[in-house]
Amino acid sequence: MKKLNEKYLAKLQELIDKGSDDALSEQLSTLHPTDIAEVLNQLKPENILKAYKLLSDELKSEVLVDLHDEIRDGILNRLTSKEIAEDVIEGLESDDAADVVGDLSDEKLKEVMSHVKDEETKSDVLDLLTYDEGTAGALMGKELVRVEETWTVTQAIKEMRIQAEDISNVYTIYVVDAQGLLTGRLSLQRLLLTATSTRSLVGELKTDSDLVFVQDTDTEEVVAGYMEKYDLVALPVVDANGILVGRITIDDAIDVIIEEAEKDYQLASGISEDVESHDSIFTLTRARLPWLLIGLVGGIGGAYVIEWFNIEDINPLVLFIPLIAAMGGNVGVQSSAIVVQGLATSSINTTNIISRLTKELGVGLLNGIICSVIIFIITYLLSYGLELSIIVGLSLLCVIVFAALFGTFVPLVLEKRNIDPALATGPFITTANDIIGLIIYFSLGSLMSGIM
Amino acid sequence: MKKLNEKYLAKLQELIDKGSDDALSEQLSTLHPTDIAEVLNQLKPENILKAYKLLSDELKSEVLVDLHDEIRDGILNRLTSKEIAEDVIEGLESDDAADVVGDLSDEKLKEVMSHVKDEETKSDVLDLLTYDEGTAGALMGKELVRVEETWTVTQAIKEMRIQAEDISNVYTIYVVDAQGLLTGRLSLQRLLLTATSTRSLVGELKTDSDLVFVQDTDTEEVVAGYMEKYDLVALPVVDANGILVGRITIDDAIDVIIEEAEKDYQLASGISEDVESHDSIFTLTRARLPWLLIGLVGGIGGAYVIEWFNIEDINPLVLFIPLIAAMGGNVGVQSSAIVVQGLATSSINTTNIISRLTKELGVGLLNGIICSVIIFIITYLLSYGLELSIIVGLSLLCVIVFAALFGTFVPLVLEKRNIDPALATGPFITTANDIIGLIIYFSLGSLMSGIM
Repeated sequence: MKKLNEKYLAKLQELIDKGSDDALSEQLSTLHPTDIAEVLNQLKPENILKAYKLLSDELKSEVLVDLHDEIRDGILNRLTSKEIAEDVIEGLESDDAADVVGDLSDEKLKEVMSHVKDEETKSDVLDLLTYDEGTAGALMGKELVRVEETWTVTQAIKEMRIQAEDISNVYTIYVVDAQGLLTGRLSLQRLLLTATSTRSLVGELKTDSDLVFVQDTDTEEVVAGYMEKYDLVALPVVDANGILVGRITIDDAIDVIIEEAEKDYQLASGISEDVESHDSIFTLTRARLPWLLIGLVGGIGGAYVIEWFNIEDINPLVLFIPLIAAMGGNVGVQSSAIVVQGLATSSINTTNIISRLTKELGVGLLNGIICSVIIFIITYLLSYGLELSIIVGLSLLCVIVFAALFGTFVPLVLEKRNIDPALATGPFITTANDIIGLIIYFSLGSLMSGIM
Repeated sequence: MKKLNEKYLAKLQELIDKGSDDALSEQLSTLHPTDIAEVLNQLKPENILKAYKLLSDELKSEVLVDLHDEIRDGILNRLTSKEIAEDVIEGLESDDAADVVGDLSDEKLKEVMSHVKDEETKSDVLDLLTYDEGTAGALMGKELVRVEETWTVTQAIKEMRIQAEDISNVYTIYVVDAQGLLTGRLSLQRLLLTATSTRSLVGELKTDSDLVFVQDTDTEEVVAGYMEKYDLVALPVVDANGILVGRITIDDAIDVIIEEAEKDYQLASGISEDVESHDSIFTLTRARLPWLLIGLVGGIGGAYVIEWFNIEDINPLVLFIPLIAAMGGNVGVQSSAIVVQGLATSSINTTNIISRLTKELGVGLLNGIICSVIIFIITYLLSYGLELSIIVGLSLLCVIVFAALFGTFVPLVLEKRNIDPALATGPFITTANDIIGLIIYFSLGSLMSGIM
């Protein structure tokens, strides 16, 4: 397998620009499907479909699964229903196929499905689409090897060979009773090693004391928890009656496991939705605004506390010190958390620092304007006077924009110098933003009170 | 498989108290090894070894791997070298065996190894112990199925059966050349499905374009990154010459993947070492002190900024508003991050809230006293006067202790009410601690200035 690096990416880009389709197709075929997807994710929109069409049928479906959602949707929109059915659906395992067609309109889905020839594939995919997102049922695939308790080992091996033909990885063989109820499991080794010497029944060989399973309506958090706790590679799924209906493999659960770990981190950093660095400015702003609003309320609370204790002859600027310091810290933590996570999952790299900063400027400006207008109105209504209201509002805008840029810039620079960027997210950025926020606030304060 | 719950745990405890060994042994054998370990982790020290000895030989080794480090070491210390060799080492895969004996003294290790009968096991484990912690070599196991390019499929299947006997899961069959260099891989299905019909050579059936591998000296972060990116269940490891030396399975890498995700979260929450909730008060305090010290420096910086702008007739209490607000927020975030991660990994539950709070009181007091003494000395040396120095120092102690308890209590209560505890970690706890910190500070301030 060739490894992707910037030099190699540049070489591929050159082949695209020159229109050397054969050479490009040959180069792509030496890459891992996941890496091909990474290449496509970075191409100019007009080149993506062209490069995709150069792939072999087998690669086409595998690459599609790994593409960013919006790029995948773009390709799907330009394929015919027949192409989607034959090149994509029939080449994928049922869970991946259901993911790919899940976003299609009902009408288009119907059309695509009418072109799927294999009846089992069709019913499997349609069945999977009935489960709510976030449940075990939506995560599972229908491909599994199922043997009955009353079969002999010879019979089971024969059946296994037939069933395994469509499955890329048999991890465990599931044992069911005549009604299809899950009653145990059997390792492939156990079956193969006993095979030559015995006529024993499956029911005698199965193990059940360490059988772990979930119900199709369980949440994906439950699935991730079990797979992590019990070190499972595959987890069987049963319906409400205990009938075996599918299995979840670790590669699907691992994304949930990571999302769970990231979700706690994002929430702790004051980001309310599951966002990624390539989401739109609007989505990123919306995910970050709630904490900032809570911070605003806290800052006003802080002003009240200071006023309440009625410190003699206080300069009104003092009242909003907690607000300014807290907001600078909060925004910085949010920005750096998004960068650190993006770097960890390789969705950000250090080659496009300028474009990251431009995007962050957008998010910072949007959040900053909203918060500033709100705080201006509130302070004015609370009779803190026009001058103070303007100073506080304007400082807040400057502090938020600066903290957003600073929180983005520092981890990117650290990464470029091979220092763990996560080091910066907590202590340094919060503390630095606290102080710089105060400097901005008081500078504007002295400046404005001179003018007004 | 029986599921663990508090009622069932109480029943097991009853059997232990009554000394009903047979009934206890029977109950334990119906549990998953991971759950047995969980039960043992929660038993009183004097009962752990007793319960462990009741397990079957097969379970003994598997349970040992899942126990908390200190409990495992306690058991190992009370087993003879012969018991460790026969009950533990010979029942485990090489990587788990190396983990278990890795902490033994050199002398004890030698003694244990002299009792291991199987020469291959012995050399495998000793080989794994030579790798530095944190490398692919230290993470890998030696159990794998290796076939040569020039073998026929029939020959490969025969060899595979022999090699697979000691391996709990064959995921992939690795193809090597005559020198042992890794050249490709073969899926079990591919080998089995072609088996009946062809005499082809392994070299013709292997795939290599999507072969991903690491070198034994690569870091575990590289391993985790590859397994996550390429959705791998097993990853082959080669030495500096490209010779296949081992493989890493997903169950070992998943802990690294989660640790990576958690590390970013911990760093972002201002926790400098990888700590868990059951670590000692001293370890937890040490991991949290660095950020608090940075916060102190930031707070003093804040005081300087306010003083620098020379606001007329300022009450000196005002100077330390940023310090008090920031420290309350910081401590609260640290405490709640540890609780949230502990709840996520099930190492904390809501039944022992009082003992968690007691421990947190210890950490808060220790960190609080250190920080207060430092800030008292600094403010006094900076000539802020004895009164202000005492007020700031004392308030800081109160704020840190309160914030630590509050940051622990809130997520535990939310969890008990089935609300996602991570929700509390960022916004609410920081904001609440900011305000409460200011109230404590100014209350103490007015009180003390009356007295002194």
